[in-house]
Amino acid sequence: MNKIHKLIKVKTKAFLEFVDLTDQIEELIKLSKVNAGMVMVFSKHTTGAIRINEKEKGIVKDFTEFATKFLPADKYYHHNDLTERTENLVCDPNASDCLNGHSHLLHLMMGATSETIAIEDGKLMLGTWQKIFFIELDRARPREIIVKIIGE
Amino acid sequence: MNKIHKLIKVKTKAFLEFVDLTDQIEELIKLSKVNAGMVMVFSKHTTGAIRINEKEKGIVKDFTEFATKFLPADKYYHHNDLTERTENLVCDPNASDCLNGHSHLLHLMMGATSETIAIEDGKLMLGTWQKIFFIELDRARPREIIVKIIGE
Amino acid sequence: MNKIHKLIKVKTKAFLEFVDLTDQIEELIKLSKVNAGMVMVFSKHTTGAIRINEKEKGIVKDFTEFATKFLPADKYYHHNDLTERTENLVCDPNASDCLNGHSHLLHLMMGATSETIAIEDGKLMLGTWQKIFFIELDRARPREIIVKIIGE
Repeated sequence: MNKIHKLIKVKTKAFLEFVDLTDQIEELIKLSKVNAGMVMVFSKHTTGAIRINEKEKGIVKDFTEFATKFLPADKYYHHNDLTERTENLVCDPNASDCLNGHSHLLHLMMGATSETIAIEDGKLMLGTWQKIFFIELDRARPREIIVKIIGE
Repeated sequence: MNKIHKLIKVKTKAFLEFVDLTDQIEELIKLSKVNAGMVMVFSKHTTGAIRINEKEKGIVKDFTEFATKFLPADKYYHHNDLTERTENLVCDPNASDCLNGHSHLLHLMMGATSETIAIEDGKLMLGTWQKIFFIELDRARPREIIVKIIGE
Repeated sequence: MNKIHKLIKVKTKAFLEFVDLTDQIEELIKLSKVNAGMVMVFSKHTTGAIRINEKEKGIVKDFTEFATKFLPADKYYHHNDLTERTENLVCDPNASDCLNGHSHLLHLMMGATSETIAIEDGKLMLGTWQKIFFIELDRARPREIIVKIIGE
């Protein structure tokens, strides 16, 4: 069983940016020399999602408009309420990375901290329109994505 | 490591049809002779979801009514706006397969382009009520699903 | 290829309880002696979700308030309508486990019957804030989660 376990580091620029990881993943598959197997793409974050979808600017605009209405950042969230919150307070009072209740709920609804894709004949088995994205569900920040390849 | 990499082809009949793939997947597990391992069921499409849920007609009706209200097809979507869209225009102006912004947003929210299920004693380890579906998030069309089995 | 296939049994206490499975999964990885591989955590239920998120009481409160409004239990669901339903009626008329249309729709939207996490150097490769939860989408009840570890 060949395998690769690598970290992709990205620096996101905005809430709901779609970062296309497809080329980097294809490069790692070549490196791994795995002919038949699977690649898992895993976000190490609780406010970022791995998603497979079409790469088209309109979809990103649509999703941004939709998600902003669906779970507005400026609503009341217990997670943001520093008068009642006691856990995981590694941020200064009012620091923006503590005030991301909307990001956590969007992540809980969207799910999928990872996606797994088949490898066959040494190639990533995606459909015509499928690209693999990290979607930023919080403000701009550095992010890490694990790419794990297994197979033969 | 035994393995099988197969394509299931389906022809969906309508928006939000639930196509039950469970029997075909069980058949492929028998063929693979894998006793202990995993099967991955992967949709090659950006407007179709793989889902595990109960098979009951009321749930399909409920989901159709819900999703139609949640993300109506006839709302404005940038993805559908051929006056501003410049990418992936492999369709004629106004062709229905270009006008599926609602399908992309539903897919982004639902996530899960694939599901992975354990195999033990040569059997698919599903719970009592679990069936594996391809859910059509766009209009009726031909669809392809990859079934990948690994194990021993 | 080493492997472990185990069942974790939990008894949930309420709708939208977050049951933290992380410690039990780390224990199983130690037992498996897998150094490099993957662990799959799979719910055997159609009204329960596996989710990776931060463990903070405010998030659970926020999600409960959100989900209760998003898909209220007391709305009309075809799945709950015993005057029209004919399938999977293993419950008495009006039994609460038949009246869970909201749970099925929440599950269909949230997706992810399972999550897969990398193992490297014998350790679960989670980010700083990531914990693995079973989220109860129905009333309190006994639940079973499959933990499958593969690797070397």
